[in-house]
Amino acid sequence: MGEFELIARHFKRAVRAGSRRVALGIGDDCALVAPDEGMQLAVTTDMLVEGRHFLSTVAPARLGHKALAVNLSDLAACGAEPIAFTLALALPRADESFLAPFAAGLFALAEAQGVELVGGDTTAGPLNICITAFGQVPRGQALLRDGARAGDDLWVSGRLGDARLALEVFRGEVALDAADFEQVREAMERPQPRVTLGRALRGVATSAIDLSDGLVGDLGHVLAASNVGAVVDADALPRSTVLARQSLALQRQCVLAGGDDYELLFTAPASRRAAIEAAARLVGVPVTRFGQIDAAAGLHVVDRVGQPVEVSWRGFDHFAP
Amino acid sequence: MGEFELIARHFKRAVRAGSRRVALGIGDDCALVAPDEGMQLAVTTDMLVEGRHFLSTVAPARLGHKALAVNLSDLAACGAEPIAFTLALALPRADESFLAPFAAGLFALAEAQGVELVGGDTTAGPLNICITAFGQVPRGQALLRDGARAGDDLWVSGRLGDARLALEVFRGEVALDAADFEQVREAMERPQPRVTLGRALRGVATSAIDLSDGLVGDLGHVLAASNVGAVVDADALPRSTVLARQSLALQRQCVLAGGDDYELLFTAPASRRAAIEAAARLVGVPVTRFGQIDAAAGLHVVDRVGQPVEVSWRGFDHFAP
Repeated sequence: MGEFELIARHFKRAVRAGSRRVALGIGDDCALVAPDEGMQLAVTTDMLVEGRHFLSTVAPARLGHKALAVNLSDLAACGAEPIAFTLALALPRADESFLAPFAAGLFALAEAQGVELVGGDTTAGPLNICITAFGQVPRGQALLRDGARAGDDLWVSGRLGDARLALEVFRGEVALDAADFEQVREAMERPQPRVTLGRALRGVATSAIDLSDGLVGDLGHVLAASNVGAVVDADALPRSTVLARQSLALQRQCVLAGGDDYELLFTAPASRRAAIEAAARLVGVPVTRFGQIDAAAGLHVVDRVGQPVEVSWRGFDHFAP
Repeated sequence: MGEFELIARHFKRAVRAGSRRVALGIGDDCALVAPDEGMQLAVTTDMLVEGRHFLSTVAPARLGHKALAVNLSDLAACGAEPIAFTLALALPRADESFLAPFAAGLFALAEAQGVELVGGDTTAGPLNICITAFGQVPRGQALLRDGARAGDDLWVSGRLGDARLALEVFRGEVALDAADFEQVREAMERPQPRVTLGRALRGVATSAIDLSDGLVGDLGHVLAASNVGAVVDADALPRSTVLARQSLALQRQCVLAGGDDYELLFTAPASRRAAIEAAARLVGVPVTRFGQIDAAAGLHVVDRVGQPVEVSWRGFDHFAP
């Protein structure tokens, strides 16, 4: 099957009738996209490489889901409404048994989120998936990393650490029974981008970031951008019952520095607690308070009685030795 | 050097003061981009893989240039004004001796074209460069592939085939002296996107496409999208003096099916010939008429006396055996 036929078969879909924001989809030199009046376009790009961002054992449908989900998670962290995305794909060969389920997983999430594939590129090469996603946000209302203020609560959505626990199982460091493994594996392979929560937090949260490299590292970006510090209660960080049955040391490593969580970390004044809890209930995503922003620089991780917890792990660095 | 430091050192540049279209650049979960009032955003993405889109012998500065140039060429083909781009990069290692010149070549073209790097991603992995570029075009005025009409002239910018001739030298199929080789090698490694020409063709050309896979294949996309045919004079296609000294068979292969030209192919009514020549002179890019659009489907390639030229080559297919 030729390249053009391959693209057409799996990825070319008609632009939805009546789509105002996508005037032209796949099939020309460019796609044409227009945010609504008064909106800014939020843009994010992520590149996924085998062995770094996914294991060779992942089902192609889950990989298709995850490749888009990690980008939608960035849009969520800005409070943007997803509109469209482009997909560039390098494949060792035009393999139907990979492409069909990959496209199915990708489009299932795209349709659930109302986001259209508007352009792309395919080439032969070592497996590599690069998605660029576009969302819209009212001018000046995007949630950024630099808005955290002293006294703000620290919040996080969902549960942390399951993706890392799954990775430890794949590495042979931890053993889980089949049902538990499937649960944490799904967290790793099918993250759910918190798009509706992100939008609900506009005008409420003072800053937000999505958790991809681990809470300590990603919170560090917020603290640096906002020029503040924080106290974090390690034991308050939400985790699954599967993770809660592991050793405390492993739990802490997974929730503090696990990576691949794709939950939202955000800050808000204490006066907005009720508004945040109401918004979270409305969108059906649990949220948890786990600390507070300090005026003084520095990140202090403590346990439930206020004793310091040693944090030796750092954010995930793709080029660390 | 860590990933974040790597990014900061080579790729993080301040958004230009007073930039209205890029409200937020690198450093948050998303960049924020807004086209001007009444404009649509043109979006394109290209992924470059070693051995497919560039040779391992290419100088990193030229690779940085080319990676952006091929995307700007797609914007040019739509008549869009480039605004911004994202860069996702997989690298075997964080190699300063690659990154510094790569970034220099990339930013030299970006600055010359007034386009800003607004986001990106870097990861370890087999060398892969994925750029997504954004331009703006007045609503409804983008040059598309489906507007060619029977009787329209066929035009092409610049000269064709030098990039393919350089590839044949690298393959050992052709020998050139050093000066000639450097000239065609530059065509292959430093293509000049025809951005100003593309903008000048808005409202004049009826269709346009950028030539990346070879004239015959790319013209085929225009004919299919426009539901028309064409007669092409193979001997009228513009070529360098270096290419013109090669055998006629090689010349024809290079100009008709060379690939990697990054020139604009466009159509326009005969009544617009003077307007097109004036526009081309104004932007300083030569343009050449080389055929005509037919109502009947089919692509007929002829020589200067109207005899059929056999065309056995097809457009470049990344997955062809």
